[in-house]
Amino acid sequence: MKTPYIYHGQDAFWVTPNQHSMTLTLVSESNILISAIFVRCEPDNEEMLVDMTRGETHGRLQYWHGEIPLNTDTSVTHYCFKIMQNSRQWWLHGNGISPRIPGKEAHFKYNKHNQPPAWVKEQIFYQVFPDRFANGDPTINVQTDEYCLKGNERPTIAKEWGEPVSPHGNNGPNEFYGGDLKGIHDKFDYLENLGITALYLNPIFTAPSNHKYDTTDYENIDPHLGTNAQFAEMVADLHQRNMKIMLDAVYNHTSVNHPWFDMYQRNQEEVGAYNHPDSKYRHYYQFSGDSNDYIGWNGISSLPKLNFSNPDVQNYIYAGKDAVIKHWLRPPYNIDAWRFDVIHMLGEGAGATNNAHYVKAFRESAKSENPDCYVLGEHFFEASRWLQGDQEDGAMNYYGFAHPLRAFFAQKDIAYHSCQIDAEELVDWLNEARSKIPWLNQLSQLNQLDSHDTMRFLTMLDNDHETMQLALLMLFAYVGAPCIYYGTEVALEGGQDPDNRRCFPWERTEKPHPMLSFVKQLTTIRKDNKSLQQGSIQWLVAEHKQLAFARTLDNELTLCLLNNSENAKAIEVPVWQLGIEDAVLSDLLTKDEWQVKQGILSLTLAGKEGLLLTKS
Amino acid sequence: MKTPYIYHGQDAFWVTPNQHSMTLTLVSESNILISAIFVRCEPDNEEMLVDMTRGETHGRLQYWHGEIPLNTDTSVTHYCFKIMQNSRQWWLHGNGISPRIPGKEAHFKYNKHNQPPAWVKEQIFYQVFPDRFANGDPTINVQTDEYCLKGNERPTIAKEWGEPVSPHGNNGPNEFYGGDLKGIHDKFDYLENLGITALYLNPIFTAPSNHKYDTTDYENIDPHLGTNAQFAEMVADLHQRNMKIMLDAVYNHTSVNHPWFDMYQRNQEEVGAYNHPDSKYRHYYQFSGDSNDYIGWNGISSLPKLNFSNPDVQNYIYAGKDAVIKHWLRPPYNIDAWRFDVIHMLGEGAGATNNAHYVKAFRESAKSENPDCYVLGEHFFEASRWLQGDQEDGAMNYYGFAHPLRAFFAQKDIAYHSCQIDAEELVDWLNEARSKIPWLNQLSQLNQLDSHDTMRFLTMLDNDHETMQLALLMLFAYVGAPCIYYGTEVALEGGQDPDNRRCFPWERTEKPHPMLSFVKQLTTIRKDNKSLQQGSIQWLVAEHKQLAFARTLDNELTLCLLNNSENAKAIEVPVWQLGIEDAVLSDLLTKDEWQVKQGILSLTLAGKEGLLLTKS
Repeated sequence: MKTPYIYHGQDAFWVTPNQHSMTLTLVSESNILISAIFVRCEPDNEEMLVDMTRGETHGRLQYWHGEIPLNTDTSVTHYCFKIMQNSRQWWLHGNGISPRIPGKEAHFKYNKHNQPPAWVKEQIFYQVFPDRFANGDPTINVQTDEYCLKGNERPTIAKEWGEPVSPHGNNGPNEFYGGDLKGIHDKFDYLENLGITALYLNPIFTAPSNHKYDTTDYENIDPHLGTNAQFAEMVADLHQRNMKIMLDAVYNHTSVNHPWFDMYQRNQEEVGAYNHPDSKYRHYYQFSGDSNDYIGWNGISSLPKLNFSNPDVQNYIYAGKDAVIKHWLRPPYNIDAWRFDVIHMLGEGAGATNNAHYVKAFRESAKSENPDCYVLGEHFFEASRWLQGDQEDGAMNYYGFAHPLRAFFAQKDIAYHSCQIDAEELVDWLNEARSKIPWLNQLSQLNQLDSHDTMRFLTMLDNDHETMQLALLMLFAYVGAPCIYYGTEVALEGGQDPDNRRCFPWERTEKPHPMLSFVKQLTTIRKDNKSLQQGSIQWLVAEHKQLAFARTLDNELTLCLLNNSENAKAIEVPVWQLGIEDAVLSDLLTKDEWQVKQGILSLTLAGKEGLLLTKS
Repeated sequence: MKTPYIYHGQDAFWVTPNQHSMTLTLVSESNILISAIFVRCEPDNEEMLVDMTRGETHGRLQYWHGEIPLNTDTSVTHYCFKIMQNSRQWWLHGNGISPRIPGKEAHFKYNKHNQPPAWVKEQIFYQVFPDRFANGDPTINVQTDEYCLKGNERPTIAKEWGEPVSPHGNNGPNEFYGGDLKGIHDKFDYLENLGITALYLNPIFTAPSNHKYDTTDYENIDPHLGTNAQFAEMVADLHQRNMKIMLDAVYNHTSVNHPWFDMYQRNQEEVGAYNHPDSKYRHYYQFSGDSNDYIGWNGISSLPKLNFSNPDVQNYIYAGKDAVIKHWLRPPYNIDAWRFDVIHMLGEGAGATNNAHYVKAFRESAKSENPDCYVLGEHFFEASRWLQGDQEDGAMNYYGFAHPLRAFFAQKDIAYHSCQIDAEELVDWLNEARSKIPWLNQLSQLNQLDSHDTMRFLTMLDNDHETMQLALLMLFAYVGAPCIYYGTEVALEGGQDPDNRRCFPWERTEKPHPMLSFVKQLTTIRKDNKSLQQGSIQWLVAEHKQLAFARTLDNELTLCLLNNSENAKAIEVPVWQLGIEDAVLSDLLTKDEWQVKQGILSLTLAGKEGLLLTKS
């Protein structure tokens, strides 16, 4: 039996929250027989079915309306729809349509109390790895042999801008190219012109390595990157431009050279935890008795894990009046967002015990200083339980975006193993990830194709620029805030860490670059089309390697079509489902026009072609 | 591309827990090319892939072995399997095989700390609605007009055994047939002979209605059912017979006539909460200020909801030294199990706030008295979050058993609306529900076709005995402890509440009854075959209306085949997947024999035929 067309979006057209209830709208195909539609919700965990009212009809579309109570026992209200036909029933939920009640994880979710800041969904983020972006002040460059990492086995190496990075396992963390805050600041015009609205900087606090995930001082910018004052000035300029900044919060572990740990006893004033069972910092970490055995993050001995059951650690990081989480949110720094590193592993003792408690505490700390602070978690895997609203606003969306796209476009999985999924499976994966979390959190996910922790997407594609453009199209058209890893816009290549951290090839910006102008088109389109920032999503085609989906908001509509096959492919897009019967659609990239006839957009996509259409 | 055959069960053959790790076994088809298999787990929420070792080969089957650490941050360890072929990968999880990593809810789960009592999975439960089972002592019968329910609007009515019950909304709760404890006790031989090993009694504590979900005294058996001493004696006799008993715990709300509430001011000694803002029991309930407005369960004013944020209520129900949960687990009563009524709705304030906290507290209270106490929750809907091990041992398995079977066999849903699912969808539903909870909790679910809260299954089937027998076959062959609602074995009919609570028609036991002998066969088979009690489950056929699955444990194998179509249907069962190439299988019900040739059992099932086969 053919599945009927039934749809419910989650933007304001479909969902109107009131103080104690919410009003819901649903649309069905008007020419199919439906005897009743119920909204199913679970106030106090007990099923409630609310009969929906048959509303207005527009052409082939029949609208329905209903009102359900908001849950009082939890801040998240779950709901789904039960559609009655004569001899059978259907259920509409976040992951599609089924013949029976869906599992709770797929019910639509609305969180009335814990919502992400409104600004996040409007942003176009740009991730910068500071040592490799731009060198603004060569006088503060790290010098060769200036110091050693982890005691004395890895002396620093200064390299020329653009010189190849060392292979993994050699001098990954101890070679420096001189990128710094002034370099970033100097490129604000470039970034603004590219259409970037928010910067995400990999760690900038004092730390010996180039990646700076080994903090030795949470209160000061690394002197090789700049000064606190310079940072404050830079943020002020950013804010002047109506741009935002997110910093990397590395609170799970410190460097062995942090004065609290002081493995190599460099600290003159106080005795660190290592080798000193009586140090006042001993319980900042987790030692086995009086021995020198301690817990390192993920078994890495150079990154001793902080002990969050220690109130001194709690106060320093999040609970105290001047805790570092709060400190950088305050003047003169005023940062807008924290990206919490490996936050899923943080907790008491050796591992992640009581993790949710600490993530909530981090959130509360940040929001107490600035309710509009974006709380982002790093998660390589499914992060649904951190994203119900009360922990994180969004995650680095590897599970629900980067990995599905990697599989679909690059036939690779998280570990770069072969992985083949078709468009149906891609959509199922994307839907599964989204349906598990409230809509506003879906919009506040940080979507990336790649990062400082992955091979560059273009390199995964064996440098196939056409497919890269399809993936970028998807990045800018999909639900969640797009984030570009620096250099993507000039087709920067790079294998796995540390090759993914090459110097920005500024020479590529000096003459017209097709990828750069493509990205600029995309940022402009995303900024001009609120439907892409916060519109509901509706899949229209998902077959083999072809995909079509719409984003709609109020009367604005954007349609994304793509053909991931090498060969041309004719597709029929049922745009009548969007209420379009006869209309002209225009291509936002090429300005080409397309005629819709009787609710169907018929067209042939060239091999590897992607389109972004809107209603003229 | 054809999905390869890969399987992992969860009984001791496949899973061996050690102190800090667990050893896992997997089987694949030996003639398909597999380059590697990894177990994927998440210690401290970080992915770990463990390379499995290629083990022994048996015919077409290739075994693999691997060892993973048990999680330390949580008591549940999640895992799934990643199977590498040349150009693609597969994932094996609790809900089947997919081309990409499954959502976390479908990963296999093992709970190292919180495990259900071992005895539960071996039981065959029998649910008795005491007023309707057997009248052993007419001298204690409720008399007509003996008292009134809810003040004075509903006088009691005494009815003759077997007289039709009143329609819903009339005298449902206030008509009495005289069933009592002695009646139940008198039938122990009957029950034992039927193969029952555990009794579940609907509430027996003092309460005005016949259903007794409106308790007025938690410490005394209702005098119209018997005495505490009689109950103690009855349990002693049960235990003598190596049988168990489970009582209904109605702690979410009380009767308005409970002395704590005392709406009608019957209590001579103390002042109840209603109408007396200064009563010492006022905060046992939830009143709006000094008014008489209070919270009733599910909006039912005759069942005022207890206030669990009140320490007096906590102490009385679960926390105190002599809390009622503990009291009945102690001598001389020694009950074996509690079935907690509407436990999902229990909490602070008006609804279910902090529900998990109280469910855990109930569990701890019960286990502190008897670690082997079975903690069962009533849940009409998905109960996955109560069933991770630390709250309930099992649930009344409506979501994961009764409802899927109702849809498959009776084309009805929870609300008796039309609902059509085929065998594939049935299996998907059953798997989804099971995969979300640890294996030992799966085995400890209380599976029912019907109960005092639903239409009788036979009546849902329009009295179709053939289909009823298929459903019973499934009840006894599936994962979880079967529970028969009294009278099912003599084909007792009954519509929705209160018609589902008809008197037991004892005359039907006086001569041979085909349903009775069928149920007796099933109880015998279930008791004789440990594979049915605790064996892993493996689906072999799920197509249209045909179904075949195996339960295996050690060298024991039971195969359940059924055809839910009216028409005969030829099926081919790939028993090579169980390691059977050429063998004779014998029917446990009819003793017929079936020949397996080259790994395939080919046979034609008659319309509505069901078989239970075992290896001779």
